[in-house]
Amino acid sequence: MAKIKKASESLTIMTNIVLPNDTNQLRNLFGGELLARMDRCASISATRHCERRVVTASVNHVSFDHPIPEGGIVVMESKVSRAFSTSMEIYVDVWLDDPINHKKIQTNKGIYTFVAVDEFNRPIPIPDMEPETDVEKERYAAALRRKELSLILSGRMKPSDSVELKKLFQEQPQPETDK
Amino acid sequence: MAKIKKASESLTIMTNIVLPNDTNQLRNLFGGELLARMDRCASISATRHCERRVVTASVNHVSFDHPIPEGGIVVMESKVSRAFSTSMEIYVDVWLDDPINHKKIQTNKGIYTFVAVDEFNRPIPIPDMEPETDVEKERYAAALRRKELSLILSGRMKPSDSVELKKLFQEQPQPETDK
Amino acid sequence: MAKIKKASESLTIMTNIVLPNDTNQLRNLFGGELLARMDRCASISATRHCERRVVTASVNHVSFDHPIPEGGIVVMESKVSRAFSTSMEIYVDVWLDDPINHKKIQTNKGIYTFVAVDEFNRPIPIPDMEPETDVEKERYAAALRRKELSLILSGRMKPSDSVELKKLFQEQPQPETDK
Amino acid sequence: MAKIKKASESLTIMTNIVLPNDTNQLRNLFGGELLARMDRCASISATRHCERRVVTASVNHVSFDHPIPEGGIVVMESKVSRAFSTSMEIYVDVWLDDPINHKKIQTNKGIYTFVAVDEFNRPIPIPDMEPETDVEKERYAAALRRKELSLILSGRMKPSDSVELKKLFQEQPQPETDK
Amino acid sequence: MAKIKKASESLTIMTNIVLPNDTNQLRNLFGGELLARMDRCASISATRHCERRVVTASVNHVSFDHPIPEGGIVVMESKVSRAFSTSMEIYVDVWLDDPINHKKIQTNKGIYTFVAVDEFNRPIPIPDMEPETDVEKERYAAALRRKELSLILSGRMKPSDSVELKKLFQEQPQPETDK
Amino acid sequence: MAKIKKASESLTIMTNIVLPNDTNQLRNLFGGELLARMDRCASISATRHCERRVVTASVNHVSFDHPIPEGGIVVMESKVSRAFSTSMEIYVDVWLDDPINHKKIQTNKGIYTFVAVDEFNRPIPIPDMEPETDVEKERYAAALRRKELSLILSGRMKPSDSVELKKLFQEQPQPETDK
Repeated sequence: MAKIKKASESLTIMTNIVLPNDTNQLRNLFGGELLARMDRCASISATRHCERRVVTASVNHVSFDHPIPEGGIVVMESKVSRAFSTSMEIYVDVWLDDPINHKKIQTNKGIYTFVAVDEFNRPIPIPDMEPETDVEKERYAAALRRKELSLILSGRMKPSDSVELKKLFQEQPQPETDK
Repeated sequence: MAKIKKASESLTIMTNIVLPNDTNQLRNLFGGELLARMDRCASISATRHCERRVVTASVNHVSFDHPIPEGGIVVMESKVSRAFSTSMEIYVDVWLDDPINHKKIQTNKGIYTFVAVDEFNRPIPIPDMEPETDVEKERYAAALRRKELSLILSGRMKPSDSVELKKLFQEQPQPETDK
Repeated sequence: MAKIKKASESLTIMTNIVLPNDTNQLRNLFGGELLARMDRCASISATRHCERRVVTASVNHVSFDHPIPEGGIVVMESKVSRAFSTSMEIYVDVWLDDPINHKKIQTNKGIYTFVAVDEFNRPIPIPDMEPETDVEKERYAAALRRKELSLILSGRMKPSDSVELKKLFQEQPQPETDK
Repeated sequence: MAKIKKASESLTIMTNIVLPNDTNQLRNLFGGELLARMDRCASISATRHCERRVVTASVNHVSFDHPIPEGGIVVMESKVSRAFSTSMEIYVDVWLDDPINHKKIQTNKGIYTFVAVDEFNRPIPIPDMEPETDVEKERYAAALRRKELSLILSGRMKPSDSVELKKLFQEQPQPETDK
Repeated sequence: MAKIKKASESLTIMTNIVLPNDTNQLRNLFGGELLARMDRCASISATRHCERRVVTASVNHVSFDHPIPEGGIVVMESKVSRAFSTSMEIYVDVWLDDPINHKKIQTNKGIYTFVAVDEFNRPIPIPDMEPETDVEKERYAAALRRKELSLILSGRMKPSDSVELKKLFQEQPQPETDK
Repeated sequence: MAKIKKASESLTIMTNIVLPNDTNQLRNLFGGELLARMDRCASISATRHCERRVVTASVNHVSFDHPIPEGGIVVMESKVSRAFSTSMEIYVDVWLDDPINHKKIQTNKGIYTFVAVDEFNRPIPIPDMEPETDVEKERYAAALRRKELSLILSGRMKPSDSVELKKLFQEQPQPETDK
């Protein structure tokens, strides 16, 4: 599996409307429903990247910055942000698009990890990923820090063995600016 | 709002079955549906703790350790793991309970942050929380490290200003063992 | 199958929120949705009691005493109330829990009958059940009257052959007080 | 409200298919979903009879005699079986219609009680109902026995005050044959 | 398959309520949900006519003449309007029935084409259909014009080869009045 | 409202997966669910074109050329194909995208009409639309024929008054090739 793919090859766009069916009692898109849609969008990006069946391994982080009202048009875009040996990090951006009032604001960012599996549900190697744009490169770098952190927090890596995270606590910090 | 509440006061149990309706094409509980149920369970714990209307602020982490097959009985238990000034961390444990084969295995752990809001959707102060059991105390401590980390990764805190995280990278690590 | 189980061993708690998705046009939990949730809760209790696959045999009675508004927290608790040779009666209690206004009121009571089945869908013997608390004992006794009644109304038992029901119409009545 | 209506004026037919969405893990129509559909069908009959907004007061009995497989065509027919001062009993018959194999079998019978309410949710008087066919007359008579029974079991009537039920335990029984 | 069937043999009635679950942000029945219900109703008519498994081949036309508000009672009636060698046209009429205000108005008409298939998903011959009422006869005649039109628009028939449509553009038109 | 917009300005992409939830008994995407998703996709294109609230006026035609299996990735793309004074025709293309087997096939084409409405639900003028690509131009021209046809079939235009359709039956036909 020597193939290297671009982030843009996994781009998945999922546009949809918020129906009453999808809302909480404040008449905004229900958090759980949003998480479910992001997971579906991310899983398509993962499938497109590795061309194999995939399963969700973890949700690393999802921010809820703005509520999305009933009737709103929700635009989700997901792409692979970094590929490891058998797992991928997927970044999902969510916007509320309001063509009537000519506004489009980012409401959520989400980071998911997926694993490609064979017919016996065992992890299999996946293609590498090469970032191209500035945002893709930034997210690619941050993905490694997030992976180290996850290993440390689960006791599978000693903090002293980390490469990227240790730098963060020794150098003058470069605040992360995922936009 | 001087009141202090116990973790157990926000305990919420949500038992349910996996219907075909809820599955992916491998006939396991669909990841998105699981995230939605955890969010609902966590939001009830948050409401019980602060006795106010709450909204999801972020999903901090959700692990997917075992698939949950169609027909399976899913048991979710959520509790407030730490309260900050206007936000709470909620810990959700998920098990697959199989009374026919006398097995019960943990399939997922999830960590969510909720905020209590007033009628204008503005954050409001919430009661403090005092852990009692060993697991509650461990999660209470880890919640602070997670909060610092979140502030650092979003550029709102310098790594050098962190208290708990800096320790982690200076001392011999104590692997976290949330069970 | 000499084993005897306690009512508490089949206790199942299903806490959930009423989303707009689940309501009728009065913005209360839709009756049909409530019946569906009670059936799912009861079927878990039945599975836990007999440790076999179960199917709904009948709904014996469900009362609707208070509407449950959108956004409300619904707590369901179900337990086996009596086991017969191949069927079980399950009692489901439903409350509206309102931590914001510090109120918890019972909204519904439901009585379901389930049967345990083998892989060919044939009824199979189930463990006996021994009530412990006062409420469990009361419901255990009433379950026999309900069974006799059901046999009489379907023409499978002569009223003169009934034991418990005949007493009811001959003695001074003891009004049933399932609370 | 002197008007008297016929049972046939409230006849409601709800034909539908069982989609995978509606099934349990045995690939049959899920009990809870069936209860929900019957409730909806019955509520339309109730609305047609009393021409007012109605709410479910109780489910008196629902039998599950045959499973309904995925892909099956389900035919429900409901009619008012008896009207009391502010409440109505509704009888719902359910068939599995299989035009491919030229079979139609009755799978369920259900009995629901509805109440007509005004804008403040208070019960209001409803029109009387006159049965015409033999089955309608049989169900009309049985409805009174069921009502007495319900009052006795809830402690609101003494067994000795019942009219219809006492007869049942004194005379040679006439087994009920609702077809 | 020499058998000829009547339109009335495929009559399917699907009565249902509009729940909040089914609405758009104007609190009317969502167009997509209506289309889905009409498809299900039509597919039952098709199955009843040809007594075989059927699949949707096309939606030929659906009009949206009146919105159907939340809480409304929707009555759908579908019948085969014409059978061709392996395909059938199904006509679906939709009404909003309002027993509280004593009104019943037609809100939609829909025309669907279904094909009967064998176990390998290949089209199979179906019984012929004979219209009886005036409306059935009118729709039967119009079905042929619609079929020709569909063949012309898809390039599978030359306009000069059409029989019914050519008449339309040569004679004085008889405006179609499907009621 | 002198503004003229391009077809591409209303382009809406809705990618999604087929879950068991969405299938018929052949385990393919259920026709009704597909129609519902196309309607939602088309309504977003319509909103983007006219920047006003819109409602579905009619479904003009939807073809079902290939079934979409469970687990399949469905890509929908919709664009305004022609704007009239107060209504728009929307063209929806549907593909089954299979990255695992490197195939992408068109499964459906759909044509919907939407109307822009003001706050009193009255039709309002909408911007004009100028096609750019060859396919857009072809669909733009065909849209007029479809509109004339619809007026004739509903009796609101005499065949002799049609411009585009009359040509079709007088000239040597140019088979329509919407790809």
